[in-house]
Amino acid sequence: MRASQSFLPLLKETPAEAELVSHQLLLRGGFIRRLASGLYTWLPLGLRVLRRVEQVVREEMDRSGAQEILMTVVQPAELWQESGRWELYGPELLRLKDRHQRDFCLGPTHEEVISDLARREIRSYRQLPVNLYQIQTKFRDEIRPRFGLMRAREFIMKDAYSFHMDQASLEEGYRAMYDAYCRVFQRLGLDFRAVEADSGAIGGKRSHEFHVLADSGEDAIAFCRHCDYAANVELAESAENPEAAATPAVDTPAAVLTETPDIRSVAAQAEHLGIGRHQIVKTILVMADDRPLLLLLRGDDELNLIKAQRHLGCARLRLATAEEAEEHTGAPVGFIGPRDLPAGLPVLADLRLRGLQDFSSGANQRDKHWLHLQWGRDLPWPEAWADLRLVQAGDPCPRCAGGSLEICRGIEVGHVFQLGTRYSERLGVRVLDEGGREQTVLMGCYGIGVSRIVAATVEQSHDERGIVWPEALAPFRVGIVAINGRKSPAVLSAALELHDRLEAAGIPTLLDDRDERPGVQFATLDLIGLPHRVVVSDKLLAQGMLEYRARRDSDNRLLTPDALWELLGGAS
Amino acid sequence: MRASQSFLPLLKETPAEAELVSHQLLLRGGFIRRLASGLYTWLPLGLRVLRRVEQVVREEMDRSGAQEILMTVVQPAELWQESGRWELYGPELLRLKDRHQRDFCLGPTHEEVISDLARREIRSYRQLPVNLYQIQTKFRDEIRPRFGLMRAREFIMKDAYSFHMDQASLEEGYRAMYDAYCRVFQRLGLDFRAVEADSGAIGGKRSHEFHVLADSGEDAIAFCRHCDYAANVELAESAENPEAAATPAVDTPAAVLTETPDIRSVAAQAEHLGIGRHQIVKTILVMADDRPLLLLLRGDDELNLIKAQRHLGCARLRLATAEEAEEHTGAPVGFIGPRDLPAGLPVLADLRLRGLQDFSSGANQRDKHWLHLQWGRDLPWPEAWADLRLVQAGDPCPRCAGGSLEICRGIEVGHVFQLGTRYSERLGVRVLDEGGREQTVLMGCYGIGVSRIVAATVEQSHDERGIVWPEALAPFRVGIVAINGRKSPAVLSAALELHDRLEAAGIPTLLDDRDERPGVQFATLDLIGLPHRVVVSDKLLAQGMLEYRARRDSDNRLLTPDALWELLGGAS
Repeated sequence: MRASQSFLPLLKETPAEAELVSHQLLLRGGFIRRLASGLYTWLPLGLRVLRRVEQVVREEMDRSGAQEILMTVVQPAELWQESGRWELYGPELLRLKDRHQRDFCLGPTHEEVISDLARREIRSYRQLPVNLYQIQTKFRDEIRPRFGLMRAREFIMKDAYSFHMDQASLEEGYRAMYDAYCRVFQRLGLDFRAVEADSGAIGGKRSHEFHVLADSGEDAIAFCRHCDYAANVELAESAENPEAAATPAVDTPAAVLTETPDIRSVAAQAEHLGIGRHQIVKTILVMADDRPLLLLLRGDDELNLIKAQRHLGCARLRLATAEEAEEHTGAPVGFIGPRDLPAGLPVLADLRLRGLQDFSSGANQRDKHWLHLQWGRDLPWPEAWADLRLVQAGDPCPRCAGGSLEICRGIEVGHVFQLGTRYSERLGVRVLDEGGREQTVLMGCYGIGVSRIVAATVEQSHDERGIVWPEALAPFRVGIVAINGRKSPAVLSAALELHDRLEAAGIPTLLDDRDERPGVQFATLDLIGLPHRVVVSDKLLAQGMLEYRARRDSDNRLLTPDALWELLGGAS
Repeated sequence: MRASQSFLPLLKETPAEAELVSHQLLLRGGFIRRLASGLYTWLPLGLRVLRRVEQVVREEMDRSGAQEILMTVVQPAELWQESGRWELYGPELLRLKDRHQRDFCLGPTHEEVISDLARREIRSYRQLPVNLYQIQTKFRDEIRPRFGLMRAREFIMKDAYSFHMDQASLEEGYRAMYDAYCRVFQRLGLDFRAVEADSGAIGGKRSHEFHVLADSGEDAIAFCRHCDYAANVELAESAENPEAAATPAVDTPAAVLTETPDIRSVAAQAEHLGIGRHQIVKTILVMADDRPLLLLLRGDDELNLIKAQRHLGCARLRLATAEEAEEHTGAPVGFIGPRDLPAGLPVLADLRLRGLQDFSSGANQRDKHWLHLQWGRDLPWPEAWADLRLVQAGDPCPRCAGGSLEICRGIEVGHVFQLGTRYSERLGVRVLDEGGREQTVLMGCYGIGVSRIVAATVEQSHDERGIVWPEALAPFRVGIVAINGRKSPAVLSAALELHDRLEAAGIPTLLDDRDERPGVQFATLDLIGLPHRVVVSDKLLAQGMLEYRARRDSDNRLLTPDALWELLGGAS
C-alpha cells in the first residue's frame, strides 16, 4: 500500500485523555479514533491488525473442531429473564426498548441465545458434543470506560459454547479449547500465562484465564518459576497444609489485658505493644449472605475475600459496617477479638494461625487489647479453618517443593469456563440419551477478547519510539522508506518495484512515498511498528544496495536486493 | 466437511411464518434460525454464504481504491442532532440511553459518524478524494419485520463514503463505485439491473439502485430491452416530449354540463357518460408543503407522487383530505375539475394532456361533470406542465426510438448516492483548497445489503427441490453422497479420500456421511443447493465409476474419478 494514497492520519501530540501507552500509541499511529466515551472507530491500519487476530483465532477454533456461526448483537429480554440474568446483571447490561416497547439488550455475552438455539435444534446424544463459536461485536456499558480498547464499551469478542452429555466429555472439550487458546497466543507471538481463575458472576466450576503479561495489567498473577503453577492472585492458594497439626504452645506468659487508647489498626497495635505484626490475630466481621461471621487472620496477612466466599459457598460476602460489627460483637471496630465472643457468632480462622501461639488481639472492649493469648488455654481453638489470605511474592509455592511464588501483572485476553448446567438447566437444554431418557446437557464457554488483544499486545511490545508488532500481528510486515521519492523518479520507481514484488509474494508492504523529510518517515515507521524497514535512496541505489533494519534492532544493515529478498522471504 | 460431524439442522416442514421462498428454504436448509422478530442467527452453512458475499464485496471495494475501516454499531445522538436526522428519522431509528442517561442510537447508516471522522482528520485537498468503507452490523427497527433476511431488523451492510473537492471528482468516484458494484454482482453470478432511482430520505442528487431480478421483489423496475434504460417505476419517465406543441382542437362539440349523481370515480364517470377513460381529465388536489395544488392527469393514468414531488422540489407532498379538497375548491371529491376554479389555486398538468381535446371533467359542483371540454375554448390552457404519470408496461421508451418499456420486479441489494453537501455542510466537513481557502467537501455514499443478497439470490435461483446456488456463493462447491457409508467401509473410505483431495485442492466439499437413506441424502443436497453432486456407492465402486450431477441439470453422468477431477477442476 502506498502511504500517499492511504488514510493514515497521525497525531503529533499524545492525546491528553490517553493514560495507557497502548491507547496513546494506537491513537498517535492512526490505528483507532475515539467516537465517544468507550466507542472507537478502527481506521485502516488498526483494522488490519484486528483482522489478523481474528484470522488466527478463527483458524485455531476451526482446527479444534468448533464451528462458526453468527448471533445477533440485539437480544430479546425474555431469554435473559429465563436465565435469571435480566435481574442479576448490573447496569453494564445495556437495556433498550424497541418501537413496540418490548425489552431487549445489547449482548455482553451470548449464553442465553446459544442455549435457546441448542434447545431447539439438538435433540439427541448423537448430535453431541458440539462447539459453536462466533466473532462478534459485544457491548458492556462500563461505568467509566477508559484505557482505549482495553476497556471499551463496544468491543469484539470470540465466544464459543460447547455442549456435552457428561462431565468427561466437557473436560475433553474444555481441554481442547485450552490447547487451542495456547496455540492462538503462541501464534500471535505473545508472552502469556494460563492461570487458574475465579469464574465470577458468569457462574460455573472450573475456569482458566489467559493473560498477556504487561506491567500495566489490571490483574495480579501469582506464578511459580519452578513448576507450572499460575493463578490469579484472587484465587492463588497459600502453601499452608490444611492437614498439618496445630503447633502446641510453649512458654506463653500469662495473658494480660492492656490499655490501648484509640489503637485500632494492626500497625498501631504492633507499635504500641512493641510486637511484630505477625504476633497479632486480626479479627474481621463479615456478612455472608447477610449473616455475621468472624474471620481471623495473622496481622501481617491480608484477607482474600474471594477465596473466603468460595470456601463458604455463599452468594454474597462483604465486610460488615462499623454499626453491624458493634451490634454483633458488642465492641467497636479495632477492638474486636476471638476471646469472650457473644455465643453463637461463628468463627473461621486462616490456616496460618495454627502455627501461632503467644499473640495479641482485640479484647471486645473499647480501648483494650489482650497480650500473650494462647489457643486452648485462654480461648478455645477455632472450630473452622480455611485458606483465607492473599498470597504474597516470596510465599512458598502451593504445588511444588522448593518453588516460591512471584507476582506479575497481566491483561486478561481469554477465559475458559466449565459452566456445567448453569444455563442448560434454567433454559431447559435437554437431549435424549442412549437409553431414550431426557438429560440436561453440560456446557462450557470460552471467550477471547479479540479487540483487547490489539491493545494488550502494544502494552507488552513497545519502546520509546512506538509500537513493536510481533510478525503475526503487524498491519504490514515491511515498510519501505523512499527518501525524497517525490523528487527522485529513480528512488520512487525502485521503491515501487520492491513494494510490488513483496506484495506479489504475499508480504504485506507499506511504501512511505509521502512528501516528508526522512526523519519524519523513519519516526512514522517506528511509531506504527512494522517489523522490517527498508530504505531506498539515490545514494543507496548508486551503490546497488538497500538499507535494512528490524524494528527490534538498532543496527542498520546494507544489503543487496537479493540478500534482502532472502532475509524477508525467510521471515515469511 | 463431514455432515455427520457438523451442525446442520434441517427442517422437514416449511415454517408457517415464512412467506417468501428464500425465507422457507434458508430455514429448512439450516442456513439461518429466527431468534426473535427480525433477528436471525447465522448457522454454519449460512455464514459460509455470507462470508463469500463479504469477500467478493471486499475485494472489489479494495480494487476500486476504497479503504476498509470499522465504525461502531452504537452511535451518539449528538451527531444525529447536528445532521438534523435525530428529529427527521422515524421510529426505525432505535434510540436508547446508556447508564448515564445519555442518548444513543443503533446505526442504520453511518453518514454522521464518518462525517465526524472526516472533519477531524481531513484538513487539506491533498488528502482527497478518499473513499472509506466498512462491512458492519446495522439495525433498523422495522414496524413489521418479515421475509426473513430480506427485511430483518439487524442486518449486515457494506457502506462506503467518499469525500471530494468538487463535482467532477464526485462524479468520478461515483462512477468507480457504480463499476465496482457491477463487478460485484457479476462475480456473484446474479441477474441484476442498475436503475435510476429516487434517493429518498437520505437526501442528495443522483442515485442508482442495483436490483436482483426476482418475481417476489418489492420494487417495480421499468426497463427497455432495446437500449440500456432502466429505472425504478417510482422515477421512470414517460416518453411525452415536454417540448412538443399542444394538439390544436378540432371539431369539439359544445361543452355540456351533465348530471352525474354520485358518480365520483373515473371508471364510473366513463361508464355513465359512455366515453373512454382516456377522454377524462382527472383532477387531484395535493398539499405541497401544506399548500394546495391541483394536479391534472388523463383518466387512464395514475399519479406518480414521487415524480411530482421531485418536479415541485417540495419537502412533503401528499394527497389532500376530503375536507381540504372541498375547502380549497368548493367542490366535493369526485366532482373537482379544471374549469371555474377559485382564483389563485395553482394547476399542474401532466404532459399527456396536451394531446387531449374533447374531454370530460368534474364541474366543481356536486353531482355534475362537463362533457366536450376543450383547452383554450372552454378553459385556459394550464400554465404548468410536467411528467406526473406512472409509466406502464408497453409505454414507448423515453430514451430510444422504437423501444418500449417492460416492467419487472426487483430486490434492491445496492444503492449509490451523490450526497453532495447534505451532511458535510451541517457537520462542517471543510478542508483547505489549493488557494488556502476553506471549502465544504462533497460526499457520496454507497451501500450493499450483504445479508440481503443471500436471500435475494435464493429468490432468483431456486427450483421446487430447493436452492440453486451460483458457484461463487455456494457454501460448498461439491457435495459427496456416500451411499450406505455407515455399513460399507469401502464406500466411506473412497468418499473420504475424494473429499480430502477436493478440499486439499481448495474446493470446499461437504461429505454426506450421515446414517440416512439415499433418498434423504439426495433431497438434502438438492435443498441446500450445492452446485455439484457426486455419488459413491458399492455398485459404482465395482465399476470404477462415480455418479455426477450438476444441481442445474437433471441428468446423472457416470464418470471415472479422473474425468470427475477434470470436470470439477475446470469449474474451479
